[in-house]
Amino acid sequence: MFKVVVDAFGGDNAPKEIVKGAVLAANENADIFITLVGKENEIEELLKENNFTGNNIEILHASEVIDNNEQPTLAIRKKTDSSLVKAFDLIRNGEDYAGFVSAGSTGAVLTGAVLKLGRIKGISRPALCPILPTINGGVVGIIDVGANMDTKPVNLIHFALMGVAYLKNVFGVKNPRVALLNVGVEEKKGNELTKETFGLLQQLEGINFVGNMESRDLLSGKIDLVVCDGFAGNVLLKSTEGAVYNLLKLLKKEIKSSFFSKIGYLFMKKTFKNLKTTLDYSDKGGAVFLGCKNIVVKSHGSSKADSIKASIMQVVEMKKAQVVETIESSLQNVNLDFLNETEN
Amino acid sequence: MFKVVVDAFGGDNAPKEIVKGAVLAANENADIFITLVGKENEIEELLKENNFTGNNIEILHASEVIDNNEQPTLAIRKKTDSSLVKAFDLIRNGEDYAGFVSAGSTGAVLTGAVLKLGRIKGISRPALCPILPTINGGVVGIIDVGANMDTKPVNLIHFALMGVAYLKNVFGVKNPRVALLNVGVEEKKGNELTKETFGLLQQLEGINFVGNMESRDLLSGKIDLVVCDGFAGNVLLKSTEGAVYNLLKLLKKEIKSSFFSKIGYLFMKKTFKNLKTTLDYSDKGGAVFLGCKNIVVKSHGSSKADSIKASIMQVVEMKKAQVVETIESSLQNVNLDFLNETEN
Repeated sequence: MFKVVVDAFGGDNAPKEIVKGAVLAANENADIFITLVGKENEIEELLKENNFTGNNIEILHASEVIDNNEQPTLAIRKKTDSSLVKAFDLIRNGEDYAGFVSAGSTGAVLTGAVLKLGRIKGISRPALCPILPTINGGVVGIIDVGANMDTKPVNLIHFALMGVAYLKNVFGVKNPRVALLNVGVEEKKGNELTKETFGLLQQLEGINFVGNMESRDLLSGKIDLVVCDGFAGNVLLKSTEGAVYNLLKLLKKEIKSSFFSKIGYLFMKKTFKNLKTTLDYSDKGGAVFLGCKNIVVKSHGSSKADSIKASIMQVVEMKKAQVVETIESSLQNVNLDFLNETEN
Repeated sequence: MFKVVVDAFGGDNAPKEIVKGAVLAANENADIFITLVGKENEIEELLKENNFTGNNIEILHASEVIDNNEQPTLAIRKKTDSSLVKAFDLIRNGEDYAGFVSAGSTGAVLTGAVLKLGRIKGISRPALCPILPTINGGVVGIIDVGANMDTKPVNLIHFALMGVAYLKNVFGVKNPRVALLNVGVEEKKGNELTKETFGLLQQLEGINFVGNMESRDLLSGKIDLVVCDGFAGNVLLKSTEGAVYNLLKLLKKEIKSSFFSKIGYLFMKKTFKNLKTTLDYSDKGGAVFLGCKNIVVKSHGSSKADSIKASIMQVVEMKKAQVVETIESSLQNVNLDFLNETEN
């Protein structure tokens, strides 16, 4: 039985789509048990609306909600009866929870996870690692995309180790090609952070470090894991999403502007559908937050039921693949003595 | 008469495409006079090959070439007979050159420009500012995209002033909307650099600062100038280019995979052509390097004749629009006293 805790009151479409997603996951998987955290009355109402009759969803009442505009650390400390804090407390004090899903404030979810669940021993900073589809049908992970703004080289070494464990165990990538995000492929390129990190990644055993990469190669399929600080990773992720979105929008506009184009479109409908499926993120769940003692999946703020269901399944997959345990043991098995020379 | 100096031996397709581009520009514009710098014999041969019979191209002999693998500062200091160094010396010692075009090593071009031409008084760091087409047919500038890796807030203030002068004078954007590249739109978001810069941009007079922006909005048309450090800007620019390139590649593959799609494509050929034209960078010249005492246009390393011609015309446009003079006067007219409190 996989016990997953879900923040029913996080995200733009909470609680409606969150509860619906939980019902979908619970109905389709008898081996999953979900705890929905939030206002009991509203959740009960929604379970009825979704005709849920199973016995693998329970409710944990929480009267407060943390929203996007609140200062994360303050909110976590003060709103002790919020869905987020009560969810974290439940996992921390319980023993056998597989993990946690929230579509709420990224800052609050990440801060709460570190404060309440705690970091894996030896990990300096947990990090967000979303997975994107590549143009040749594979996947690429980016770690970090926004949990850590000003980072040190040692943090990026930990990001690399965590990302590799995740890609190997959950996606079956045998020997993940790890690249350092930079402004050019040459060794001496970049800012102080990347120049120092390059040397450290070269010394890191058991990692298939393929050198620096330029951001234009993200979707090329040549790289399995991109290592970067959270600011650069955020720019990388969102500009890629934005370019894809805006290009498809432009294409749509162009198609509509001509009669022949519209006819052409009729013949190509399936092609566009395939394209959209390849690039669609909505059924791929959320970004995992690696480095805490439990699995945390941050679903997109605008998540609908399908994404929530996918995020719940992601927790289960990660638990099955023992990602947390693998990160723990990879830290023990890898010689990180060379890091002691640099500031931790 | 606009005198433009061109590095005939910089770039992947030098000297052939460079000379060809210069001939195109010279033939079509009687008021342009071009100095091609590089190996005299080879340039003469190429001028003949291109049937050039005009009198508005001259050659300045230079026996050496600086390549991409050389350490920029060292190369500029040691290779005194290189096309790049001789070109810079010509401009520095001459009086009425409009500016310089090179498709050579970015590092060497930028380093040489600062060392040889010198910075505009008051500008802490010159910066690269490419212009991209937006999806609604407008343009957006990004400053910086790679000239400065580790920057301070004061540098970004200067980037903003320079970019605004450029967009106003050359592209006729009346009151450019300036945004700070960040991980979210909220004021408190970001790393130390962006948090501090946000406050300074708010205090800067005469600038239409619209706040933080996320990278996904780059092509949206909502912003005219993106201000960022060179590392983040490089990631932004190249991931956008990469996503567009890879998406079109994927689309092509999908079209080829089905018979009906191919028929559809026949009807849509013009649509795809329009799309390509909107997104095509090759006829838009290079990225301008703002902040030096002369105009410097860095053409893409893979530039062909059309791009070189466009870059030469860009120098002329910028000279006509008096971009250098405008940057100088904008520094005098804007009250930058508040910057003195922060480290310069």
